[in-house]
Parts: sequence; C-alpha cells; structure tokens
Amino acid sequence: MVPIVSIVGTSDSGKTTLIERLIPRLIRKGYRVATVKHDVHGFEIDHEGKDSWRHKRAGASTVVLSSPERVAVIKDVEREQTLEEIRSACVGDVDLIVTEGYKRSAFPKIEVSLSRESAELVCARDDNLLAVVSNRSPCLDVPFFRDDEIDRLADWLEDRFLKRKGGRTIEVRLSGRPFPFHPLLEDAMETMLRGFFSSLKGWDPDGTVEIRLCTRKSCMDP
Amino acid sequence: MVPIVSIVGTSDSGKTTLIERLIPRLIRKGYRVATVKHDVHGFEIDHEGKDSWRHKRAGASTVVLSSPERVAVIKDVEREQTLEEIRSACVGDVDLIVTEGYKRSAFPKIEVSLSRESAELVCARDDNLLAVVSNRSPCLDVPFFRDDEIDRLADWLEDRFLKRKGGRTIEVRLSGRPFPFHPLLEDAMETMLRGFFSSLKGWDPDGTVEIRLCTRKSCMDP
Repeated sequence: MVPIVSIVGTSDSGKTTLIERLIPRLIRKGYRVATVKHDVHGFEIDHEGKDSWRHKRAGASTVVLSSPERVAVIKDVEREQTLEEIRSACVGDVDLIVTEGYKRSAFPKIEVSLSRESAELVCARDDNLLAVVSNRSPCLDVPFFRDDEIDRLADWLEDRFLKRKGGRTIEVRLSGRPFPFHPLLEDAMETMLRGFFSSLKGWDPDGTVEIRLCTRKSCMDP
Repeated sequence: MVPIVSIVGTSDSGKTTLIERLIPRLIRKGYRVATVKHDVHGFEIDHEGKDSWRHKRAGASTVVLSSPERVAVIKDVEREQTLEEIRSACVGDVDLIVTEGYKRSAFPKIEVSLSRESAELVCARDDNLLAVVSNRSPCLDVPFFRDDEIDRLADWLEDRFLKRKGGRTIEVRLSGRPFPFHPLLEDAMETMLRGFFSSLKGWDPDGTVEIRLCTRKSCMDP
C-alpha cells in the first residue's frame, strides 16, 4: 500500500510551496510522488473552448484526454472520494502520495505554519500530527522543521515512509554516483540476483556481493 | 464491457461539434456517456499558477484534484494508453464511451465529413467504419446521416450499442414522462420486483406487471 502523508495548515500557511520544495528532493532520492489536492469548493481545470472542455460541457460524465506522455481524466462523482478510494482508483505506480489538505482524514499529517506564525495549529490536537514545519517551536511533542530545513524534512520522510526496515540491501552506482533506482525494480533485481547466487557453491546468505559492470576503457581506469 | 465508438475524420471535419450534439441526446435517453479525446501532440489542461499545476511542475508523476462533485487526475505515462486500458483504468460507471480520434484503433467508427466535403474519407477502407455523417452520400455500404439527422444518429447508436436485446423489460414513468433510469438501477429494480412477484400466487412469468405510485391528489386525477 502506497503511504499517504497530508500537508495541512491554514489557507495561507505555505502548504503548496512546501510541496513544491519537497517533491524535487524526493525525486532526487529516486522516488515517484503523487499529489492529491483537496478542493472543497470545486474546481475548474480545463481550458474553455478546448475539445475536452466542450465534451464535458455537453454533459459527458467522464472526459479523458490521452497523449503519448500524459493522461488526464475529469470525472463526475456523486460524493467526495475518500483518500483510500483515490489511492486505489486514481494513482498509479508511485512510492508516496502527498496530499494538500485533508486535515480531517486519519492519515499522518505534517502541519505547515510559515506565514501566520502566531496562528494556532489546526491539527495541534490531532493524534495523526507527525511533524510541524514552522520557524517557531510548536511546543508539541513532534519533530519540527524550520523553513530552511526542507532537506532534513525530506530525509525524515524517507526514513519514516519510504525506506524499507533494515535499510537498502542493494546499492547500484552508475559511474560512481548512486543510481536512482525505482524500489520495485530494486526489489526485482535483488530477488533475481539472490536467486542466482544462492545456487552457487560458496554462497553466504549473510555475505555481500559486489558486481561491477564496465566498458573496456572504464575498467582500465584506477 | 462498456462499448466504445470512435468519431473520426480530418481535423476540421466537425468531430467535436458532432460529439457536442450527440451527448445531450444520449443523456436525454437516460444513458451516461464518457468521452476520450486523442491528442497525439500532448496537451496542457491545468491552469498556470494553480496549486495542482504547481505540484505537477514540481515533478509529481500523478496529480489528483478532488472535490465533492468532481475528480481530476493528470498522470504521466511511459507510452500511449490503449483504449482498452483507458476503459478499464480511467472510466467509471457509464453506458457508452465516445472517442474523438483514434482512427487507427479496431473499435467501431463513425466518420464525420461536414466541413470539407470533397475530401476523401480517412476510414473509407476501414472494416470498422460503421456509419458516415456527411451532407453528401459517401457511396459506401454503411448508414449515412446528414447534418440535420443527429436525432436519427442517436437512435441508431442506441439500437446498435445501448439497447439490450429484446428491448427494455421495465419501463418507469414519472408524471407520465419516461424516467431516465440508469441501466444498472433498472436491472436491479427489475430483479427485485421479479423476485417479489414470483413468490406470489397467480404470478405469470410471461405476463406484465404495472405499478403506479401516486400521492392522494394525483391518484384522484383522471
């Protein structure tokens, strides 16, 4: 099940900006991220006059736009979808779902309070409040991160939600740099390699294996 | 499986306008319609500066917008999705999927040729071409509909793709007018009523049942 973390806070607290700063950091760590924006007032998404906009206006209950790089779906619903429904129906192959809003859900929350720092936290008494991003200590028993500690927040999110227990058991480097491996591929490669080596004489299941692939030229380098 | 019909034609042939005219007619018959727009050149759907647009720009591979009335999903894909994939992953509870484009798919097609009538039909030699909308006879062995025959086209689509074989077996009228019943609900109500009546004495499985619900006042009307 893909973990869900909600970024909550008042309307001018800096939620979107925090998400904008977090996503590239998580991507650089090799993760795929989906976001869910909660819009209680409804939203307009398509551009007036476009074919898909005309289809929707004519009464189509679902409109899909499909291109080689991207798919967009706009669908009428009879009631608001829960985050669980959105996770299972709308979100594909990602490692983490970050929501903007959903302060009343039962998923783990990070509250942002960067713009109106004197305001009380909206989730101060929420058992699912896991951390706070603020330049002033929230006086709560949860980790807190200042505006200039988004790298540390990304590391903390990775530890909390993305790293497998016991840490990574396969590491791949490309020309010396960590290769941003998708966790699914990582698992598949590890299973395949362990299967292969376990059939060999001298295999120690607790040992380590190092494999180096190189071109003729790179192998000659020191 | 929800049927798929593709509206095809050259870029200025009148595909979108035909879809805009067809959808309300199908809705009035009580059907729910989804559309799929094929966009080979890619598309922009969100509005610059909106929170969801900022999430996508920051690198989210999927962005979901959720409100009580509507859900929108924008998702990166590694290759173009087939219509079968779109039907199973993106489209919910509808009776018909109308696509704009997809002239190379193997689904039934209706070609529109209303603006440039001298142009050759793009699907003239396609075995899946089922009908043509044009003001000039296409000289092909398929039904053809003029610009002012969209009602007839909607009836033809209903007969071809939407009516259950043997016609409707339950009819509900509301204050004398046909009630636009969703086929799923219609099936459920029919099953329930048949189950109820079959346990009664005098039930004839080939007979008809008429039920009239009324208020005190309406029952007194002639």
